[in-house]
Amino acid sequence: MITGNTLLIAHIGYPTFAFKSPMIYNPYFEQAGIDAVVVPMGCQAPDYPAFLRAVFTLTNIRGALITMPHKVTTVGLLDEVSPTARIAGACNAVRRDGNGRLQGDLFDGEGFVRGIRRKGLDPRGKSALVVGSGGVGSAIAASLARAGVAALGLFDLRERAAEGLGARLREHYPALRVNTGSNDPSGYDLIVNATPMGMNEGDPLPMDMNRISPGSFVGEVVMRTEMTAFLQAARARGCRIQVGSDMLYEQIPAYLEYFGLPGTSAEQLRALAA
Amino acid sequence: MITGNTLLIAHIGYPTFAFKSPMIYNPYFEQAGIDAVVVPMGCQAPDYPAFLRAVFTLTNIRGALITMPHKVTTVGLLDEVSPTARIAGACNAVRRDGNGRLQGDLFDGEGFVRGIRRKGLDPRGKSALVVGSGGVGSAIAASLARAGVAALGLFDLRERAAEGLGARLREHYPALRVNTGSNDPSGYDLIVNATPMGMNEGDPLPMDMNRISPGSFVGEVVMRTEMTAFLQAARARGCRIQVGSDMLYEQIPAYLEYFGLPGTSAEQLRALAA
Repeated sequence: MITGNTLLIAHIGYPTFAFKSPMIYNPYFEQAGIDAVVVPMGCQAPDYPAFLRAVFTLTNIRGALITMPHKVTTVGLLDEVSPTARIAGACNAVRRDGNGRLQGDLFDGEGFVRGIRRKGLDPRGKSALVVGSGGVGSAIAASLARAGVAALGLFDLRERAAEGLGARLREHYPALRVNTGSNDPSGYDLIVNATPMGMNEGDPLPMDMNRISPGSFVGEVVMRTEMTAFLQAARARGCRIQVGSDMLYEQIPAYLEYFGLPGTSAEQLRALAA
Repeated sequence: MITGNTLLIAHIGYPTFAFKSPMIYNPYFEQAGIDAVVVPMGCQAPDYPAFLRAVFTLTNIRGALITMPHKVTTVGLLDEVSPTARIAGACNAVRRDGNGRLQGDLFDGEGFVRGIRRKGLDPRGKSALVVGSGGVGSAIAASLARAGVAALGLFDLRERAAEGLGARLREHYPALRVNTGSNDPSGYDLIVNATPMGMNEGDPLPMDMNRISPGSFVGEVVMRTEMTAFLQAARARGCRIQVGSDMLYEQIPAYLEYFGLPGTSAEQLRALAA
């Protein structure tokens, strides 16, 4: 029940029809007795800079979830941006500190990392291949670097995207070994598909699955189907896997912490949303 | 259940803790299957002009309910303001037309008028005394003029408030007979307490109740108690009465119409909110 005491979390993007967060957060808030609500706010690009500033003047706002098409723009609109968001060049969470300064972070990659950690893979000291250097690939690479991987392989058909991401990672994490230009998965502890391949029936696989060893952990970002052809092939080789939607549910506890709200587990969120 | 398709009605004011509208509108929307939600937005005066403009750039906003301390300021911030709002000098409803122009109206007085109409008193051609020329008294006087009363008596201890209101009424309704300076209720078809007298135990009555005739209809704006001393005295004289909260519930169907949403009755709203 929304009252005058309810805290707002603005969910800002456009178009709004495919927003999923309200249906994940709000049932959790209700079930956990947290007086907060995620409110979808459809905002087009020309209106966004003024709206973002204005919505954070509200006395009952606790934070904002930022989505398409504003994640990149947001980086330039805030007073303070985390290294992860800076490396990935995108923000999906904004909050206001005690002095009214707007701070931003990015939790897609954090969701991915929390998911694999809970499945038993601690990225610290490991090697990881991230195929796809777009928004989600950059986010995952940045979060893996933050989580302490020793080596990162980056690949994108647009070579400059992978190279740019690699350069930003090296700048923030000088000890990290970064390799770009190959999607050969052999020898990596962790292998991630961060391309859209798998969204559509008949998409080619993003790498040569025959070169994945059974000891590797394989993660996916595509959510349209749970068991994509990529994950099926990985499982057939005996790999442990993580499905795309785990990244979504695992990142929510990170957001909740960021907004100073009581947290929960990804499993509970998934059960409530179902 | 809030989704990306849900229409927003921003409820803007400060402080928000005493907001009642979310608990009246939202249960109705849910029960009636209307995909809309009233969202309290705490906004302080210096932030309000920019916020109002910004919130109306949202693609999924359907309207705004404006409350303290912004009702007066709003009149000067819109592209178009109804005569009722202009006379009363306050707006409590804002919407956007098809060209992005912001329009404002005021429904407190409309709620009052709808209430007495449903109780059998059509104000057309009648005489009414409105005691108190503050925000709510001005709103009721403006709505009574719009509803076609032939004569209005206005009284306020601050004489200039009553005279200013009278002048604005005469300007918009040249045929209306307006009298200011007396709170004598004798001879009026309709008598309204629009002062705060009755909010606190032991408040004096706003007029001499011995001069109210049993045929008069008596209305109240104070909501803190249902049967104020004023209404008790009126009922004791045999008058028909309207309680303060009727104005609140009766104005909501007017808002819903204004926002282009399916309407309902005040009784249903009251039952759902209870």
